[in-house]
Amino acid sequence: MHSSVGDETNKTQNSLWGGRYAEGPGAIMREINASIGFDRKMWRQDIFGSLAHAQMLSRVGIISSEDEAAIRQGLADIARDIEAGGFAWSEALEDIHMNIEARLTERIGEAGKRLHTGRSRNDQVALDVRLWVRDAIDGLDAQIADVMRALVARAAEHAGTVMPGFTHLQPAQPTTFGHHLLAYVEMLSRDRGRLADCRARLNESPLGAAALCGTGFPIDRHMTAKALGFDGPTRNSLDSVASRDFAAEFLFACAMCATHLSRFAEEIVIWTNPYFGFVKLSDAFTTGSSIMPQKRNPDAAELVRGKTGRMIGNLVGMLTVMKGLALTYFKDMQEDKEPVFDAAENLALALAAIGGMVRDMQPQVARLEAAAGAGFSTATDLADWLVRELKMPFRDAHHVTGKLVAMAEQKGVDLAGLTLAEMQAVEPRISEGIFDVLSVGASVRSRTSYGGTAPANVAKMAAEWKEKLA
Amino acid sequence: MHSSVGDETNKTQNSLWGGRYAEGPGAIMREINASIGFDRKMWRQDIFGSLAHAQMLSRVGIISSEDEAAIRQGLADIARDIEAGGFAWSEALEDIHMNIEARLTERIGEAGKRLHTGRSRNDQVALDVRLWVRDAIDGLDAQIADVMRALVARAAEHAGTVMPGFTHLQPAQPTTFGHHLLAYVEMLSRDRGRLADCRARLNESPLGAAALCGTGFPIDRHMTAKALGFDGPTRNSLDSVASRDFAAEFLFACAMCATHLSRFAEEIVIWTNPYFGFVKLSDAFTTGSSIMPQKRNPDAAELVRGKTGRMIGNLVGMLTVMKGLALTYFKDMQEDKEPVFDAAENLALALAAIGGMVRDMQPQVARLEAAAGAGFSTATDLADWLVRELKMPFRDAHHVTGKLVAMAEQKGVDLAGLTLAEMQAVEPRISEGIFDVLSVGASVRSRTSYGGTAPANVAKMAAEWKEKLA
Amino acid sequence: MHSSVGDETNKTQNSLWGGRYAEGPGAIMREINASIGFDRKMWRQDIFGSLAHAQMLSRVGIISSEDEAAIRQGLADIARDIEAGGFAWSEALEDIHMNIEARLTERIGEAGKRLHTGRSRNDQVALDVRLWVRDAIDGLDAQIADVMRALVARAAEHAGTVMPGFTHLQPAQPTTFGHHLLAYVEMLSRDRGRLADCRARLNESPLGAAALCGTGFPIDRHMTAKALGFDGPTRNSLDSVASRDFAAEFLFACAMCATHLSRFAEEIVIWTNPYFGFVKLSDAFTTGSSIMPQKRNPDAAELVRGKTGRMIGNLVGMLTVMKGLALTYFKDMQEDKEPVFDAAENLALALAAIGGMVRDMQPQVARLEAAAGAGFSTATDLADWLVRELKMPFRDAHHVTGKLVAMAEQKGVDLAGLTLAEMQAVEPRISEGIFDVLSVGASVRSRTSYGGTAPANVAKMAAEWKEKLA
Amino acid sequence: MHSSVGDETNKTQNSLWGGRYAEGPGAIMREINASIGFDRKMWRQDIFGSLAHAQMLSRVGIISSEDEAAIRQGLADIARDIEAGGFAWSEALEDIHMNIEARLTERIGEAGKRLHTGRSRNDQVALDVRLWVRDAIDGLDAQIADVMRALVARAAEHAGTVMPGFTHLQPAQPTTFGHHLLAYVEMLSRDRGRLADCRARLNESPLGAAALCGTGFPIDRHMTAKALGFDGPTRNSLDSVASRDFAAEFLFACAMCATHLSRFAEEIVIWTNPYFGFVKLSDAFTTGSSIMPQKRNPDAAELVRGKTGRMIGNLVGMLTVMKGLALTYFKDMQEDKEPVFDAAENLALALAAIGGMVRDMQPQVARLEAAAGAGFSTATDLADWLVRELKMPFRDAHHVTGKLVAMAEQKGVDLAGLTLAEMQAVEPRISEGIFDVLSVGASVRSRTSYGGTAPANVAKMAAEWKEKLA
Repeated sequence: MHSSVGDETNKTQNSLWGGRYAEGPGAIMREINASIGFDRKMWRQDIFGSLAHAQMLSRVGIISSEDEAAIRQGLADIARDIEAGGFAWSEALEDIHMNIEARLTERIGEAGKRLHTGRSRNDQVALDVRLWVRDAIDGLDAQIADVMRALVARAAEHAGTVMPGFTHLQPAQPTTFGHHLLAYVEMLSRDRGRLADCRARLNESPLGAAALCGTGFPIDRHMTAKALGFDGPTRNSLDSVASRDFAAEFLFACAMCATHLSRFAEEIVIWTNPYFGFVKLSDAFTTGSSIMPQKRNPDAAELVRGKTGRMIGNLVGMLTVMKGLALTYFKDMQEDKEPVFDAAENLALALAAIGGMVRDMQPQVARLEAAAGAGFSTATDLADWLVRELKMPFRDAHHVTGKLVAMAEQKGVDLAGLTLAEMQAVEPRISEGIFDVLSVGASVRSRTSYGGTAPANVAKMAAEWKEKLA
Repeated sequence: MHSSVGDETNKTQNSLWGGRYAEGPGAIMREINASIGFDRKMWRQDIFGSLAHAQMLSRVGIISSEDEAAIRQGLADIARDIEAGGFAWSEALEDIHMNIEARLTERIGEAGKRLHTGRSRNDQVALDVRLWVRDAIDGLDAQIADVMRALVARAAEHAGTVMPGFTHLQPAQPTTFGHHLLAYVEMLSRDRGRLADCRARLNESPLGAAALCGTGFPIDRHMTAKALGFDGPTRNSLDSVASRDFAAEFLFACAMCATHLSRFAEEIVIWTNPYFGFVKLSDAFTTGSSIMPQKRNPDAAELVRGKTGRMIGNLVGMLTVMKGLALTYFKDMQEDKEPVFDAAENLALALAAIGGMVRDMQPQVARLEAAAGAGFSTATDLADWLVRELKMPFRDAHHVTGKLVAMAEQKGVDLAGLTLAEMQAVEPRISEGIFDVLSVGASVRSRTSYGGTAPANVAKMAAEWKEKLA
Repeated sequence: MHSSVGDETNKTQNSLWGGRYAEGPGAIMREINASIGFDRKMWRQDIFGSLAHAQMLSRVGIISSEDEAAIRQGLADIARDIEAGGFAWSEALEDIHMNIEARLTERIGEAGKRLHTGRSRNDQVALDVRLWVRDAIDGLDAQIADVMRALVARAAEHAGTVMPGFTHLQPAQPTTFGHHLLAYVEMLSRDRGRLADCRARLNESPLGAAALCGTGFPIDRHMTAKALGFDGPTRNSLDSVASRDFAAEFLFACAMCATHLSRFAEEIVIWTNPYFGFVKLSDAFTTGSSIMPQKRNPDAAELVRGKTGRMIGNLVGMLTVMKGLALTYFKDMQEDKEPVFDAAENLALALAAIGGMVRDMQPQVARLEAAAGAGFSTATDLADWLVRELKMPFRDAHHVTGKLVAMAEQKGVDLAGLTLAEMQAVEPRISEGIFDVLSVGASVRSRTSYGGTAPANVAKMAAEWKEKLA
Repeated sequence: MHSSVGDETNKTQNSLWGGRYAEGPGAIMREINASIGFDRKMWRQDIFGSLAHAQMLSRVGIISSEDEAAIRQGLADIARDIEAGGFAWSEALEDIHMNIEARLTERIGEAGKRLHTGRSRNDQVALDVRLWVRDAIDGLDAQIADVMRALVARAAEHAGTVMPGFTHLQPAQPTTFGHHLLAYVEMLSRDRGRLADCRARLNESPLGAAALCGTGFPIDRHMTAKALGFDGPTRNSLDSVASRDFAAEFLFACAMCATHLSRFAEEIVIWTNPYFGFVKLSDAFTTGSSIMPQKRNPDAAELVRGKTGRMIGNLVGMLTVMKGLALTYFKDMQEDKEPVFDAAENLALALAAIGGMVRDMQPQVARLEAAAGAGFSTATDLADWLVRELKMPFRDAHHVTGKLVAMAEQKGVDLAGLTLAEMQAVEPRISEGIFDVLSVGASVRSRTSYGGTAPANVAKMAAEWKEKLA
């Protein structure tokens, strides 16, 4: 009866684990050594590095200019093949470096065998990963700037749209939608700063460190460094092949940025909940249900939030790999690539999603304003008035305010719903002027301290960012 | 001049990030929603679950037996297609569930549309992942047992092969190679225990929890649970679709096992270093250099050690995804699959590698024995003799031993190289009998406390393990 | 002017870093070696272990019964001193073991020096940490059971209190408050299972493994194991002093439980937000503001959520410490204690807080019911009716339901607000009976599948749990 | 009999968990809210910030200059009390801010109550943590520079001391001890760079962001920023109180540096192993055994390695706390301090230990040289000679070298032990000149590429670093 179902279980297990490695050491070592399945993502970087190396070898006279020309042509042909999808990757050749070099020699003969003079796979892979990370940083930086521009545009539009400012997810004081968005602009700006610092720090060429000790060939590492867009060559050959802190730093910068995005994603999830109803997302960024068309699941936001996990995981993985590793190169370090690729690709997707949602979302202005006024949100303004106008010490002013809020709560009204007489019963020196500070609009307008929530501040700040990001 | 090189850089960047998502929300959401790229690994589990569901629907009368027969046939055909590589996966259909269901309806019509009655994608995916993890546990458990058998066999063979026992990587007391290997048998045995506990805990069927609240259809969850090899159905529908602790627990068990393997891997790296020379690995598990044939890089061991990073990273990722997630299902949870797949596959590879190396490695018996005797490694035995024979308090015996070692060091001999007279100068009650405990062989033979390093103990323990693992 | 402020900066820096270690290696090594600052938390365990060891030494004749009596009396006196706060801990004596042994010898002389026979600090510390973890598990288990009892009691009380069930934080189907709480009972039950499994696995005595190789003294490890409540002695001496997987497993169990608590904490934060208003917490579990008395910050819930971070961090730390560590003991492993203590204490606090909040919170029944009915939450029930009554295939029923929901949305009514005629315009076979399934009450009552949300189910399940937890 | 031992167990459990929170919500909330147990570490920063704030309030006319003078005096008195250990911390006052402010008001009355005008605990704590981190960075930066100076000094001393360069822990090519040490100088230099970047990025003052929205008081945030040594005020008040990326970045920089130190620590552990015997550490940095005086356990190195775990754990904890947290302040963020303090203090200790060991260690020059020559370590030099002198393509040269090494291995000699005739049998064009490159000394001298291991390079690089670090 159940047997067919039961049989299926057994098949399931067997096909997954049964005998994949039964063939023995050969199968195991092939799997361990072959990185071509993932490192071929670096084919452009590998060719780019080889072009610079060949050019230098020729200029300093280690190879002839004919050899260089042949190499250049050969690599160009290979690049074209790969781009066109016509390159046959070989697992037997293990990695991107050997796949390309072997093909090159096939195509151009002797000259191909001379390309590897004065370098080694150790510095070559260190170079390729660095170049890949550098390219990734440039791509991500442009994406973050794009998200920032989107935020700034919406902030400018909503510089004066009041909404509740929260602490502990409890409404605390009125703020503006624009001010809230600009908070993320600040975070993302620091994320860009971290990527830029990472880029500047890694921008040294390891090429020429060779296996680990440098080489006796009269190579010119400054020349290749320059050709590859580096600020110069690295200063110690052992460090050049043994270090991966640039990868870890990149992964941290990605994880930090992802964490910032996760906060915005959480807000979108909360804001689109119907009890909040602070923003609406279009169909483009939500998924529905064939059966519950009113349901607008903010899937994109959720996934952005969820992806923080793998980002932190990738960082932890990289640091753990390097922990306690003696110098110089170990095969452990082959584990640097997958987390780096995964982080870059997932952050790119998360940024695209957040940027899209920022542009797409419709703040529900009336709802935001109504929410901003609830809950005695101008109590702080009242206390500040007491300090300012009556010269009451701050702590005493808080005490008086507490009494007035309690009175309003009991009476079932807002602070502005208390009469002057009622207020004076608590503090006789209170005068008519107090009503000027009890409205939501007055509250936000009053907070003119630098970086404060006053709409004029927000508009000015948005304008400044717009210019900076132009 | 450098322009061609420089041009390449630009191309690199553009092709990676330029415009991949430029097409807009559609491209972004497709990427976010489509899990078919990775969740198709669960095709067997998905079909297995659907077979059980259809059978139950038919037995309780929700669908006809003709419909069930059609579904069964259709799914069998699909399974055959997938196995044969002839199934066309569609990204538009997003995930494994819709890919299979859509194809089924294409093939068998109406009946296919009835299959989803009384279930939802929420419980379906929860089921598939559980089944996949359960299968993975069974596969890994068999692999760990295999590694243990390999260790036990080598331990039996080398129950009496003396080697230095280390603390702080400093030789401390003589032990045996067999005893050392059995330490890993204990660790791996607990790793199996953790996997078994995880399996037992997850072995409840979420099928029938439906979207989140259960269903009004008269389904029989006990029946499907039984057909699928579960101990029974889960008890709360919300928990069934909202929880992923089984995945986190699996990831922890994998990370812990990987950490144990990393310790053995570190030892292999150290032992194969020529200054140690404790074991030799054949070509099968090392890689050489075309230029330095004496170099035997223990790549397999290094990679096993390095893979601990991603294992811990996967665990961190999963816990981070779930942290602070309200009930019930969120898209964040789609991030559960890739770490689970990655952990299972990499642990399988690491186990295969370790098992292979255990069988392959050649302990260098003479070298191990020579090393075992160096460094006054029987000083503890001397102190114990003083306690046992002279009834000296333990702490005083240590003091006397210290003096004798210092004397031997100065004289440039082993402890056995001191004369009785010299020893008696330090402690007059010392007698001839002391020489019986100063040899490496005597030392290991003497440690007969339960679990101690005495060869007879080791042989007995190896025999017990052999029987248990048979 | 600013100078006084500026001066303060400099002082700040100097006092923190200037010269603390300037004194040289002595200061550094003192700090590195001294664990007494934290390991004295294990004083009970250390004394407990020594009592069992002394008793055994006496029974097998290694020490006299007089010595044992003296040791027993001496340790009892020391325990009393410590308990009373009158024990002078010495950093020079480094750790808990030497602090107690040194004091013992001071008090009772010779006999004290005999206590360490047949053991070593390596097995002693492994024993103490195991005992501490075992005690912690017992304490935490009792606490989790207590939280479960609190949840079950509230679930029984609110088995029929309807509330919205969420997916994606969007209302999806009506459920009940009791059913929701029971979801956490399931999670916590598995957390207890993990702690119990961890306890069972670690419950083997390492005492007698000595430094690393066991001992030649005729000790009886089974006797001490029994006296200390262990299931038996460990089987391999090297593993006994070298492994800390029990600590990592404990940390995982804590992190997993903390992650579950973080989900409940997130829900409390969301539920107490005024736009939700699902539950109220009393002053006992919120903090206010002197100025905004309406503000009830759910600080306790936030802190529970936040503490997940350190829990995951502790786990990562422990695994990282052990990664790539050769056998047997290394000083690295001294880093096992602080994460274990930190996790246990913070989980105890988090559980106390959650338990307290569960008992304290007042579900706002009217609000929950109103929310449950909003948003076409019974659309699934309608679709299921079509399948059940009209034998419509599931996917077709979804299609029809979608049309009806769209119609209701346009009309601005609930599903029950459509007339039969309107419904029949979409699907002529719909009959009066459909109105029976469109109310929230009918919806929850109908979901009677095992583990489903029907109030009767929930009440029964709560009763079962109550009995299990009695 | 066993009962006394058994009783002890029960006591153990009860005292740890029994009833600590039995007293109820009060005890729980006290524990949750009270941060004074750890945040008092920031007392200097808190006072420093208050001084600047008071000065500004007075200058802009919000408080009188008399009030400012009273505040200044009061805070100075409090600082003196704390420094002298005479300040009575109160748990009831919860945190460092209230402890100091309450005491201030006790001492100086009214003026004390005015201090909090225009600020809030939210910006105050954000300020204090920033200042603490900034101070910590300055302290750690000085310590890292000190370690670098120590490394550079030893590198200069041993610029020409040859030793084996390793890949995969297998000897690969000869390098020099100085070159090896300079690799760490490069890593640490980047670690300093990361700390400096972190410092520059965090060096903006959040003071005046107030609770979350800024304030209406005419405060001058630029003035306080300047007085506190910041580059300026933060630009967005919400971000100012809601962000902790500066803490996470600091924790990453610490974790990265700790990971680098762990690599050096691993090397010391390996190098001091007697089979390596590459360096000796004095008693100052090792611990012995009363019984095995020959045992020199490199405890300091092990602990440095082990501490990497908590460093990575602290980072993970902080990122996890912030993941998915909506704006602005939540109590979760109170969890920022302990990881920051823990990381700073443990890194300070690790740096002190590494610095000490670098100065202390005695490279065993003869042993290093002997090891450098073993294992055909100049095979690469031979191959390079073939390429350079015979214009052989690189890959062909490797092939020839392989044959020569195999021949030498069979003959049981070094490469230099082959006769010219023997070499010519493999490749007839080989000439006498080849013997110039086969010695270890020639090998290292030849690697003159920039960053290569040639002693002259190393000496020059060490000199450059010495100057930079002066």
